[in-house]
Amino acid sequence: MTSIDTGIREFLESRVEAAKAKDIDRLMSHYSPGIVYYDVVPPLRFAGTDEVRGNFVRWFDGYDGPISLQTHDLDVAVSGDVAFAHMLHLDSGKRTNGLETSIWVRSTVGCRRSNGAWLITHEHISLPIDMETLRAWFPPEV
Amino acid sequence: MTSIDTGIREFLESRVEAAKAKDIDRLMSHYSPGIVYYDVVPPLRFAGTDEVRGNFVRWFDGYDGPISLQTHDLDVAVSGDVAFAHMLHLDSGKRTNGLETSIWVRSTVGCRRSNGAWLITHEHISLPIDMETLRAWFPPEV
Repeated sequence: MTSIDTGIREFLESRVEAAKAKDIDRLMSHYSPGIVYYDVVPPLRFAGTDEVRGNFVRWFDGYDGPISLQTHDLDVAVSGDVAFAHMLHLDSGKRTNGLETSIWVRSTVGCRRSNGAWLITHEHISLPIDMETLRAWFPPEV
Repeated sequence: MTSIDTGIREFLESRVEAAKAKDIDRLMSHYSPGIVYYDVVPPLRFAGTDEVRGNFVRWFDGYDGPISLQTHDLDVAVSGDVAFAHMLHLDSGKRTNGLETSIWVRSTVGCRRSNGAWLITHEHISLPIDMETLRAWFPPEV
């Protein structure tokens, strides 16, 4: 692993730590002003930091306390000032309705480096859908 | 736009043309043996060309005739031998059940270049989900 790899991996880890802590300012510091974000929830895309921030706050507000976010099967590609990564997240916690939930999501992150600092310019989070029922699909216990 | 930009854009265009023509061999020629694919449909991930090919054939078999695939809001980042792109696709056609369908999907593609040739090492396609109903969400007419 090169030092560049280490840098982007630390950056991605910092993204997850900020989300787990529901620290919106620290989390938003990872995103480019031009961020284009495809989330689990509608609409098709969120564009710019105002829309993305509002959507993160909505997500945080759904949890009573911190969010547990495990990262699995991380893979990172980096060359020069562009990188992308994909991973699975197991997103768990106590919802504000009192229920404990645990959901596997797929996560893809695209980054560019400017003046030595990485920023996320694109992110894509989703669940699979059963196209017969048009309902979200959840894996059996893994 | 640099010549490298042009190369990756032509490669991405070729991916779409192969899918529209339902030319499975040409389409698969765009994918790395180590492809990790997150699709609209389950499971969470498809890994390797055998799983990805099988899933493309399933997709093709759902259409009676060619697939119309419009690309909107394409953005490409490239540096050295790594690139990623995101776009919306309007995926339309006549299904084998006789219905004409038209679905907006979000598409993210991660590529690496080896020996001068680009290959897709990661792809992520999804629809948003209404988390109240856990059903797929479709945008109003756009």
